[in-house]
Amino acid sequence: MVEQSLLLTDLYQLSMLEAYAAHGMAETAVFELFVRKLPPNRGFLVAAGLEQAVQFLESMRFTPDECAWLRDSRLVSPAFAGTLHDLRFTGDVEAMPEGTVFFPNEPILRVTAPLAQAQLAESRLINLLHFQTVIASKAARMVLAAPGKQLLDFGLRRAHGAEAALLTARASYLMGFAGTATVLANRVFGIPVFGTMAHSFIQAHDDEATAFERFARVRPQALTLLIDTYDTERGAAIVCALAPRLAAAGITIGAVRLDSGDLGRHARAVRAILDAAGLRGIRIFASGGLDEHGIQALCRDGAPIDGFGIGTSLAAAADAPVLDCAYKLQEYAGRPKRKLSEGKATWPGRKQVHRRYHDDGSIVADVVALADEPMPGEPLLQPIMRGGRRVVQLPTVHQARAHAASGLAHLPKALKRLEPEAIPVQLSHGIRHLAAGLDAALDTAPGRKPPS
Amino acid sequence: MVEQSLLLTDLYQLSMLEAYAAHGMAETAVFELFVRKLPPNRGFLVAAGLEQAVQFLESMRFTPDECAWLRDSRLVSPAFAGTLHDLRFTGDVEAMPEGTVFFPNEPILRVTAPLAQAQLAESRLINLLHFQTVIASKAARMVLAAPGKQLLDFGLRRAHGAEAALLTARASYLMGFAGTATVLANRVFGIPVFGTMAHSFIQAHDDEATAFERFARVRPQALTLLIDTYDTERGAAIVCALAPRLAAAGITIGAVRLDSGDLGRHARAVRAILDAAGLRGIRIFASGGLDEHGIQALCRDGAPIDGFGIGTSLAAAADAPVLDCAYKLQEYAGRPKRKLSEGKATWPGRKQVHRRYHDDGSIVADVVALADEPMPGEPLLQPIMRGGRRVVQLPTVHQARAHAASGLAHLPKALKRLEPEAIPVQLSHGIRHLAAGLDAALDTAPGRKPPS
Repeated sequence: MVEQSLLLTDLYQLSMLEAYAAHGMAETAVFELFVRKLPPNRGFLVAAGLEQAVQFLESMRFTPDECAWLRDSRLVSPAFAGTLHDLRFTGDVEAMPEGTVFFPNEPILRVTAPLAQAQLAESRLINLLHFQTVIASKAARMVLAAPGKQLLDFGLRRAHGAEAALLTARASYLMGFAGTATVLANRVFGIPVFGTMAHSFIQAHDDEATAFERFARVRPQALTLLIDTYDTERGAAIVCALAPRLAAAGITIGAVRLDSGDLGRHARAVRAILDAAGLRGIRIFASGGLDEHGIQALCRDGAPIDGFGIGTSLAAAADAPVLDCAYKLQEYAGRPKRKLSEGKATWPGRKQVHRRYHDDGSIVADVVALADEPMPGEPLLQPIMRGGRRVVQLPTVHQARAHAASGLAHLPKALKRLEPEAIPVQLSHGIRHLAAGLDAALDTAPGRKPPS
Repeated sequence: MVEQSLLLTDLYQLSMLEAYAAHGMAETAVFELFVRKLPPNRGFLVAAGLEQAVQFLESMRFTPDECAWLRDSRLVSPAFAGTLHDLRFTGDVEAMPEGTVFFPNEPILRVTAPLAQAQLAESRLINLLHFQTVIASKAARMVLAAPGKQLLDFGLRRAHGAEAALLTARASYLMGFAGTATVLANRVFGIPVFGTMAHSFIQAHDDEATAFERFARVRPQALTLLIDTYDTERGAAIVCALAPRLAAAGITIGAVRLDSGDLGRHARAVRAILDAAGLRGIRIFASGGLDEHGIQALCRDGAPIDGFGIGTSLAAAADAPVLDCAYKLQEYAGRPKRKLSEGKATWPGRKQVHRRYHDDGSIVADVVALADEPMPGEPLLQPIMRGGRRVVQLPTVHQARAHAASGLAHLPKALKRLEPEAIPVQLSHGIRHLAAGLDAALDTAPGRKPPS
């Protein structure tokens, strides 16, 4: 369900591994994964995907079949291909737990392992952690925009492929979505699955009333009827006419769904129609091109909508589908390293993120410091793997929901708004001092600037 | 490599199938997949993903294991779950060949099949065709922006999961990219794979010269050295010093890669440094946050860059990661159908797209007509499957490249520009007449508007 092939990597990783092997470069490397800067519309991000990342590292190996293919492909030398079947991940990992709020330049994952292993892991580690972080960070905005509302992931059809659909269901559920429409996400991750009906079901019948009744009698539990195929208010009236007959058969209509037009106006009209018929128990569920701004506007206007189905804007995180993230070498063979490329320089050394809180539990600020630099505050990177095996039981996505919810609840007020306002992240003196020393040693050309 | 489980569907599809079965609704349905409107930055789209869509339909079945899981899940009734193991796709498909340029409201795929089969196919068909169409349409802009340049997909790490990475490699190669860095795409699709080196390789060494030489001796073919880790021009000078020693060993440096800073300025400086050293044969390759606008600007300015590696902006199609596409019921049991939802109404009936060309092969305009309505021009939807089996040999992605290239070459000049300008698509009288008749029959409320 989640791709396992270690051939899902960039070719240069294999080339570099061969060069490392040829020159006996097998010392310990430290890589850190972090986001350089926030997208325009984000005040914070939420770390997600660690469970898949750890599974990837634990199962990191080339199958005999893949080794044979690599040998024949000539992408690496046949002799080197022959050595790859022994490759395993034997390193250490520290990481922020899934659902942790974080900010730019804060490592969310640190890999400490023999150089080849840490290098080879790069492509897929970024692929897994970047995407779920993108989705979790987007879903967080929707959850903040719609307090108390039921949110559902309807994104399968517009997600970027199968794995994106599955992991969108997971990352949005992590952040407080009630569930997903994607059946496979229920099987793979145990995420609650919800369903209504499509316009095609209505259209395939000669009239809506017949379509509603047939559907209701086959799927009476959690029954939701889609009422906007032809005329939303007329659809609501048909529901009112049908309800007593279904009630006589012991079937309760749980909700109606609106999927087009001015959702606030239709919701008010439909609510009035249902209430006038004594059907106050039928909930109103809305979908159709909604993002967090649309949801917030509806909630603030007091539209009588009880839940939202969100597809497009969630599954592709349409306003910020990518993050400027990187997985960079910070130390090799005990020596700190940094990259000085213009606009992409990195801070050297293995690091820790320390978070200080107000008495009410809300975030004051974070300090990024060297891992061995004493610093007050809660250390956010926690030991996850030692010697290639996990040393903690990772929370399931069900368990991680509480941590994510607490993180959102304790965001500073300015960060709960949809309009972004970044919290300051400070860099410790230790890191700045280390960087300055490295730059001097590298005899760097003048005029270079460290990352801001 | 590409997800096969039929549980990758929306729950409502299963609910509707159960209701169809309970009421004996097994007549032939016609669904069409189309895009409602272009994203802000697009003047045209390119159809892609048909090969995966056809493979999905051919192999559409629930495994015994999945049937058992469905039965136990209670998402459908146990009795209905027991019938699902017999489900196969036995229908017909017409579609635009991969690489065909298309416009809004033009069906790119039509499914004609027993209702349940055509309904169940919806979620994954959209998921597959939407995504590759998104990427092919984005890649087309890059190809148009950089005539004669080598373009490579570097998008694995920022693609939305594994399948997105694989299919990005495929869809961009379809449109004229030279290849990808993703090794698995080479194995699965035979797409040429390219690789350079990462900054971490340089950083792991004490100096660039050693790193370059070690890499060169291990991977002498198509050798590309990354020169911006510390200082781009200094990196170029190191390459000049190294080249004679490598040449003595029979190793030719193929290219240098720039990945940061002002790429045009650095490329000119590096070109001058290399040329002064008599290294005119070393090509300059650029990467780092490039999109089609950046590429076009560099090309127009005459920057001496021979090729581009494109990651982020390609793999997530960052400016237009989703299309407003739909798969809608157009006919059931021989009767045309339409949906009238506000802003989402559809045109009824099974349709064909007719394209007329100027003498030079460029597009004049398209007419969307009923399938049986006589109309001049080339019909774009071609028979693909009959009775659940393909009736044509689908072109491989390698073969489809020529069709895609021809489509781009014959775009009207106004559509070749990065600034969008949509070509008019006309709707036939037959479709308008059919829609009006249906609306009258449905006794639609006044004030509704057909789709524009």
